[in-house]
Amino acid sequence: MRILGVDPGTRKVGYGLLEHSGGAGHRATSGQLPWRYLECGVIEVPGSQDLADRIFVVAQTLGEVIDEFSPHVMAIEKAFSGRNAASALKLGQARGALMLLAKLRALHVFEYAPSQIKQAVTGHGHATKAQIQHRVGTLCSLQTPPASDAADALAIALCHGLQLGPTLSTLPRIRAT
Amino acid sequence: MRILGVDPGTRKVGYGLLEHSGGAGHRATSGQLPWRYLECGVIEVPGSQDLADRIFVVAQTLGEVIDEFSPHVMAIEKAFSGRNAASALKLGQARGALMLLAKLRALHVFEYAPSQIKQAVTGHGHATKAQIQHRVGTLCSLQTPPASDAADALAIALCHGLQLGPTLSTLPRIRAT
Repeated sequence: MRILGVDPGTRKVGYGLLEHSGGAGHRATSGQLPWRYLECGVIEVPGSQDLADRIFVVAQTLGEVIDEFSPHVMAIEKAFSGRNAASALKLGQARGALMLLAKLRALHVFEYAPSQIKQAVTGHGHATKAQIQHRVGTLCSLQTPPASDAADALAIALCHGLQLGPTLSTLPRIRAT
Repeated sequence: MRILGVDPGTRKVGYGLLEHSGGAGHRATSGQLPWRYLECGVIEVPGSQDLADRIFVVAQTLGEVIDEFSPHVMAIEKAFSGRNAASALKLGQARGALMLLAKLRALHVFEYAPSQIKQAVTGHGHATKAQIQHRVGTLCSLQTPPASDAADALAIALCHGLQLGPTLSTLPRIRAT
């Protein structure tokens, strides 16, 4: 199963793609992780464009990524409203557009709370951005940790994957920190 | 020019369509308004569905309206963040999805502030919902005022139309109240 993780923002959208072989009854064998890293990146849009155009550019670019990799699901961070109203509005606009894009491409959409994502990937729910970057880099066997927004997106994809297969703590070689 | 006005919400989306004949150099002749009412309505989505599904259902339904009437522009209320963060997030999600839908159908998107819409349609920026319903009903020659969300959507469409052609105060028969 291919999983697209997205980290939405109005000017920057992180995305990360994994191929996950886990599922019910999956048995992790020594040294083999149940996922394979495919790609990650950050879509940036000039702030000079108006909102509708920014949304469209992001959707077009992410649409190309979806067309290339044909993921089955999109995993996205559950929005929490403990931020100020202006930020919540901007985040909402980006989230709404990405969710519509996913549904238009027939992807299933799953939402995970920030603490759930951190817990799944690092083993504790209050990990810092740098810890997530480093941990995601390790879990995806990357030589250098990805950019923060891309790492967050991969963390969301990993979080979804870890619902399907073995948890980190039961994996043979990589233990939750 | 056909104008689609939308009043976004997570569970209810109002829409209103006008055909507008105004533009630069337009001369209103006695008893003739430069717009023609086409349709208005409210798209309601069961609250039981998850967010991505609700967004998709609204987009599908509004997509059918767009396919039927082929509007050239979508006019939408400018979001203000003077509300609480939870409401702002929900509004943002609905707005972002509708903006993407519009851009995917090659509509131009225009945003108007709530006070600007009220001013354009009723002549003052602090009109009540009921005043807007009544006024929109009159301006669109409807026998009964439309439902509130549909009236708001028509008011947004009218506001855009009034940027193109004569203002209400210069129209021959209908004066701003």
